[in-house]
Amino acid sequence: MRVIVDAFGGDNAPLEILKGCAMAVQEYGVDIIACGSERVIRDVCEKNKISLDRISIADVEKVIPVEVDSTEIVKSYDDCTMAVGLKMLANGEGDAFVSAGSTGAIVVGASLFVKRIKGIKRAALATVIPSQNGCYMLLDMGANTECRPEMLVQFGIMGSAYMEHVMGVKNPRVGLINIGAEETKGMELQVQAHQQFQNAPVNFIGNIEPRDLPFTRCDVAVADGFTGNIVLKLTEGLGSWFAKELKGVLLRNFVSKIGTLFVAKGVVEFKKKMDYTEYGGAPLMGITRPVIKAHGSSNAKAFKNAIRQAKEYTERGVITEIVDSLAQLKARGGAGL
Amino acid sequence: MRVIVDAFGGDNAPLEILKGCAMAVQEYGVDIIACGSERVIRDVCEKNKISLDRISIADVEKVIPVEVDSTEIVKSYDDCTMAVGLKMLANGEGDAFVSAGSTGAIVVGASLFVKRIKGIKRAALATVIPSQNGCYMLLDMGANTECRPEMLVQFGIMGSAYMEHVMGVKNPRVGLINIGAEETKGMELQVQAHQQFQNAPVNFIGNIEPRDLPFTRCDVAVADGFTGNIVLKLTEGLGSWFAKELKGVLLRNFVSKIGTLFVAKGVVEFKKKMDYTEYGGAPLMGITRPVIKAHGSSNAKAFKNAIRQAKEYTERGVITEIVDSLAQLKARGGAGL
Repeated sequence: MRVIVDAFGGDNAPLEILKGCAMAVQEYGVDIIACGSERVIRDVCEKNKISLDRISIADVEKVIPVEVDSTEIVKSYDDCTMAVGLKMLANGEGDAFVSAGSTGAIVVGASLFVKRIKGIKRAALATVIPSQNGCYMLLDMGANTECRPEMLVQFGIMGSAYMEHVMGVKNPRVGLINIGAEETKGMELQVQAHQQFQNAPVNFIGNIEPRDLPFTRCDVAVADGFTGNIVLKLTEGLGSWFAKELKGVLLRNFVSKIGTLFVAKGVVEFKKKMDYTEYGGAPLMGITRPVIKAHGSSNAKAFKNAIRQAKEYTERGVITEIVDSLAQLKARGGAGL
Repeated sequence: MRVIVDAFGGDNAPLEILKGCAMAVQEYGVDIIACGSERVIRDVCEKNKISLDRISIADVEKVIPVEVDSTEIVKSYDDCTMAVGLKMLANGEGDAFVSAGSTGAIVVGASLFVKRIKGIKRAALATVIPSQNGCYMLLDMGANTECRPEMLVQFGIMGSAYMEHVMGVKNPRVGLINIGAEETKGMELQVQAHQQFQNAPVNFIGNIEPRDLPFTRCDVAVADGFTGNIVLKLTEGLGSWFAKELKGVLLRNFVSKIGTLFVAKGVVEFKKKMDYTEYGGAPLMGITRPVIKAHGSSNAKAFKNAIRQAKEYTERGVITEIVDSLAQLKARGGAGL
């Protein structure tokens, strides 16, 4: 299992990325191909005592900055670390690709260099969000601001394959994020998607209202990229606020500080549940090979988990499952195929 | 100050509604006109020792159920408690109207019986959401699933007038809920609204990402009714989950129970901050007279606070301010007027 890594993507590259790679080699027994300046990589590893055991280097100097327009990855940046890594993936020089760099560039680069699965209209960014007694997969979380109904159905198929094969959820419940339970609720997009889902080879449970998301009423929550991004960012913001409030409540004064000693263990568990670095990165689903977008601010641990995710995504046949489901959908006369 | 009340709207009507009315008479010195079956109202008040001091009754038997299509309020239900109350408001028989009944019916009924302010395209439901060290107003929270850009600008004007006059915020910061800070982000709706806001007589601070909402980076958060409803319901759901998790953390075992005694005061404060019943109801903005939608599950305290909100909305000249701002927008050549 060889994971190609963009060693220069993300806020903490290359140090935290390389640390994460070394940890992944140790823990998961994967081989790494790191794309980036060989001189800098060797220098950083030496200075920080990071082992390069089982890490080979594809020497690339250029890096695509996050502020550059995404489409530049196929134009003036088609020789950057991310583009080179994606092309190596397309050529079969590695089994999966992970980057903490520009989200837009990964979506464009993967769609054009590695290509989408036949029949898939758009690749979708998916993420696993912690919830009561578990987690759910949210997609699309921002790759496609505007969507058509058949795209939402495909997102449901892809999310279902992931939750079943990677997360081990039997017959995952797929919900459509909407402002009410009735099938007539929402905009034209949701009304039509709801209809088309009736015919899809997934366990569609109907609309899901956002107030039910934290209570794990579905395993896959489907939305257009605009709505999905709103849900993701509000969840992050409220999580962050509640963590601060909780800390404030517990540390307000000396008396409560004594109390804090006794509840500390519970709080650590709570924080762990809300810790996105535990869950790894965001799979870009619908691409012919596994591509994982790690969080831009990934530290070594988060990046290591993104590599673990790449490994599971690759080994557990998610892509084959998506291809099979698409064939089923087509056989049933599913829309837009 | 006479507040017309739908005594039979909401899950806990008429008991909690009538209790809330009696509390509001006591605390705020308002007069109440309760629309509903006089026989039932007198019976409930007698059995529960609720004073009818300063509460007069408009005897109406019919009640519009929540499951009935909203437009029925101007058809087969135009003689229900809600319709009668709204018509009384339109005729000047009271100064404001409050109901915990069907949201859709209130929007339709208020728009058609009481009418919109001249120039206002759509009435919007607004709500005040608690956040770090304060609160912000979210609108539209669901009255209009599909919106045009000029409607969002009008929502900003209405929310700004409310926050300034009712909540006492000087020069309220108006933000457009979007998936990024740049003016090119979002769907066509957000891109165009962003442009049109440049010309509006409000303190427009640009796009606001949902992760910043809990940190009170704006005083008014503007969205179409679909997005606003997603934000509202996810905030409710996550608030509810975190409160449960916090309780779980604190009560897990005997050792932490001892600790709980010491942190209890802080937790009570936290819960109060998250308690929507403190904030009253949702003003339906853009109507020529004050209309407040109380939460469907309002208890007496929540309904009392909705009446307080109706009083403040009426007395502090919010509607006059909206009319003035619309005139300014028109003078500046604002779009869609």
